[in-house]
Amino acid sequence: EFCRIPSISADPAHAGDVRRSAEQLALAARDAGFASAELIETAGHPAVYAERMVDPALPTVLIYGHHDIQPVDPLDEWTSPPFEPQIVDGELRCRGAADDKGQVWMHLKAVQAHLSTRGELPINLKLVVEGEEEIGSTHFEELIEAEATRLRADLCVVSDTAIHGRGQPSICVGLRGLADLEVEVAGPALDLHSGEFGGAVLNPLEALAHILASLRDPQTGRVTVPGFYDDVVELSREERDLLAVAPFDEAAFRELAGGVPATFGENGYTTAERRTVRPTLEINGVWGGYQGPGTKTIIPARAGAKITCRLVPRQRPEVVAAQVRAAIEAATPEAVRVTVTLGGGSLPVLTPVDHPGVLAAARAMRDVFGAETYLTRAGGSIPPVEMFDRLLGLPSVLVGLGLPDDRIHAPNEKLDLGQFDSGIRVLTRLWDDLAVSLPRRRIP
Amino acid sequence: EFCRIPSISADPAHAGDVRRSAEQLALAARDAGFASAELIETAGHPAVYAERMVDPALPTVLIYGHHDIQPVDPLDEWTSPPFEPQIVDGELRCRGAADDKGQVWMHLKAVQAHLSTRGELPINLKLVVEGEEEIGSTHFEELIEAEATRLRADLCVVSDTAIHGRGQPSICVGLRGLADLEVEVAGPALDLHSGEFGGAVLNPLEALAHILASLRDPQTGRVTVPGFYDDVVELSREERDLLAVAPFDEAAFRELAGGVPATFGENGYTTAERRTVRPTLEINGVWGGYQGPGTKTIIPARAGAKITCRLVPRQRPEVVAAQVRAAIEAATPEAVRVTVTLGGGSLPVLTPVDHPGVLAAARAMRDVFGAETYLTRAGGSIPPVEMFDRLLGLPSVLVGLGLPDDRIHAPNEKLDLGQFDSGIRVLTRLWDDLAVSLPRRRIP
Repeated sequence: EFCRIPSISADPAHAGDVRRSAEQLALAARDAGFASAELIETAGHPAVYAERMVDPALPTVLIYGHHDIQPVDPLDEWTSPPFEPQIVDGELRCRGAADDKGQVWMHLKAVQAHLSTRGELPINLKLVVEGEEEIGSTHFEELIEAEATRLRADLCVVSDTAIHGRGQPSICVGLRGLADLEVEVAGPALDLHSGEFGGAVLNPLEALAHILASLRDPQTGRVTVPGFYDDVVELSREERDLLAVAPFDEAAFRELAGGVPATFGENGYTTAERRTVRPTLEINGVWGGYQGPGTKTIIPARAGAKITCRLVPRQRPEVVAAQVRAAIEAATPEAVRVTVTLGGGSLPVLTPVDHPGVLAAARAMRDVFGAETYLTRAGGSIPPVEMFDRLLGLPSVLVGLGLPDDRIHAPNEKLDLGQFDSGIRVLTRLWDDLAVSLPRRRIP
Repeated sequence: EFCRIPSISADPAHAGDVRRSAEQLALAARDAGFASAELIETAGHPAVYAERMVDPALPTVLIYGHHDIQPVDPLDEWTSPPFEPQIVDGELRCRGAADDKGQVWMHLKAVQAHLSTRGELPINLKLVVEGEEEIGSTHFEELIEAEATRLRADLCVVSDTAIHGRGQPSICVGLRGLADLEVEVAGPALDLHSGEFGGAVLNPLEALAHILASLRDPQTGRVTVPGFYDDVVELSREERDLLAVAPFDEAAFRELAGGVPATFGENGYTTAERRTVRPTLEINGVWGGYQGPGTKTIIPARAGAKITCRLVPRQRPEVVAAQVRAAIEAATPEAVRVTVTLGGGSLPVLTPVDHPGVLAAARAMRDVFGAETYLTRAGGSIPPVEMFDRLLGLPSVLVGLGLPDDRIHAPNEKLDLGQFDSGIRVLTRLWDDLAVSLPRRRIP
């Protein structure tokens, strides 16, 4: 029922659904055994807060997740409707199954497991599940500031990532940051007849192609935006070697990446590094002119593109976004006008590999999966992790239980139900372990 | 009522409307005084054929027009609904007002004028109005071949262009040809999460940008497709001087082109030449990835573009399309796949400036507008003109009565009703003139 709600935060038409999703989750949290559960309103979509405080002497963990989801287009590529969850071959198939509703649900079930077998949790648990993660956690910083007291904890546990591979448990200790921009190229005030005007007016689509093509060197694979790499911390040989411990199968990766004929990226780095510890600039969407059937002989008035950059320590989103804007403006011919709108962003984050929370989570995973836990870095961004660190001094450990082939953000997203079950076991063990291993923080 | 019908030939959903438009036009032609009027079926949309044969000894003129129209998007830029014609400030505002329903209607009214004042036409008139001009006259060649006998005439008169400017009559003696293509770049089989994969996979939107940017040199303004200019006939100094007689106001042109900040085109040619006697390659539409509100952090599976080239004597559409395809394939990186689909096309055409039909039309315009008639060349394509020439040896004279600011193919298309009235007077005079000036062709 939770996954049936199309809580697409990016689309204003679904605002009511995001709220319904929050309401249903709050009810479910109470059913699972949280003593209190309520909505926290923001200037955007509401979050859910719940807690079960057992004993002030015990460590307190804040669980973070999100109940909003990605859009579903292209809809025609789904093999079953995205909001009619189906269980097929041990998989739950629907939008949000893995990212992140299924993983939030795993936490409710872990609480329920402790309560129904032992009657109480071994630690204090707080739960905050936001409704704007997929749109850059727009108002989450304000929420953290307003709710700093309630969110106080010794550790944050986030389940919004995947393990390294089936049977290959891993804890993610690094996330890339994000900077986003939108570009609009405007030429004529109206669409022009390409016969009457073609050859004498700069076509905004052509100008946009030149602008976008100018942002990366196809030979070196490097982003050409001036200053883009200035703040990037180069990894040491030791750090590169540690990351290389987790096995990486190039052919399997190409298959996972939808059967691309070849990988592509920055010269001098492995595929595993390019996707996690190196920054990138990606065009997420482009539009302009006629997209319907047949031919329409126009020079369109406008063309546009959405761009996001993935950032690594110590790039800063506002700096990178300004650099990209400057590069776009510099690449724009004078026969058109360009407008670059800067969106939100997030800083990259790293958790120390010897943090007690990381070590406890690695033990819990090893015990459940029966294999050593890799310490990895992920290419995605979870802005709240950076916010908790910066605003509350709260470290996070990423206990993600998805699989790399979950098709998050894409058609036919799924959650492996074996992972779901293992995840519940990992979490119940983790709470037991942290009850003894996690030092209490001195709250300022 | 004729303009209310959304006879958009490019969109299969409007096939019924294109047929309704043909049926209504046939009725109107009979009402105007054509002795017979009927639909001619094709493998696509139907055409209308009507005739009024007065005397086999008189010259016979075939009037050509089209009753299909361009799509209307972007719909939100129309100030009044495109299929609810309104008369405002002496203009008829709706899709098809100038291109070409209004001009076809002018012909019906000219026939009616002759019949109601004199009881008979001074020449034999045949009328063929097709339903697929806006999609490249897909089946018109077959129609001409099947109806060669009925379409037999001494001259074809086409009213589907504009005069040089308000109060500046002109006869168009040249049209550019057209070649069209569609490009699809395919990368991953599915949209990928830009965090998980960004930096390690070639983004199809980025590949497409590089491909499209490679097709024209932004410095010289020349199309870089190998062989593109090989068959282009360079104009002589005399021909360039003749074309330069018609005044050209660069500032007014920029205004007409929707207020573009600057013109842009091939070095070494004037703006007037770039848009009429020089070939071009235009991107008509581009799509790929997320185009909705907010951010969607994906690397899309696919990206695509529609391209048309405008051709000049003696470029051939099939040759140019193959050259562009080869250039696109050569520019495609190996980490993605490209598919280039070749569409239809048409040859460029020229009518001799001393043809009796051109001279008679120039006299009729001069008399009605009270100004010398310029002989110009247009940048658009009217494939049937080339087909009549090639298949029937039938010369065409382009008696277009639109104005350059009619916004054809764009939102807020309009027809100036003063031009409509003048056009009727031009045509009635032209029939009188041709009755004595037009030599009978020896029909093979």
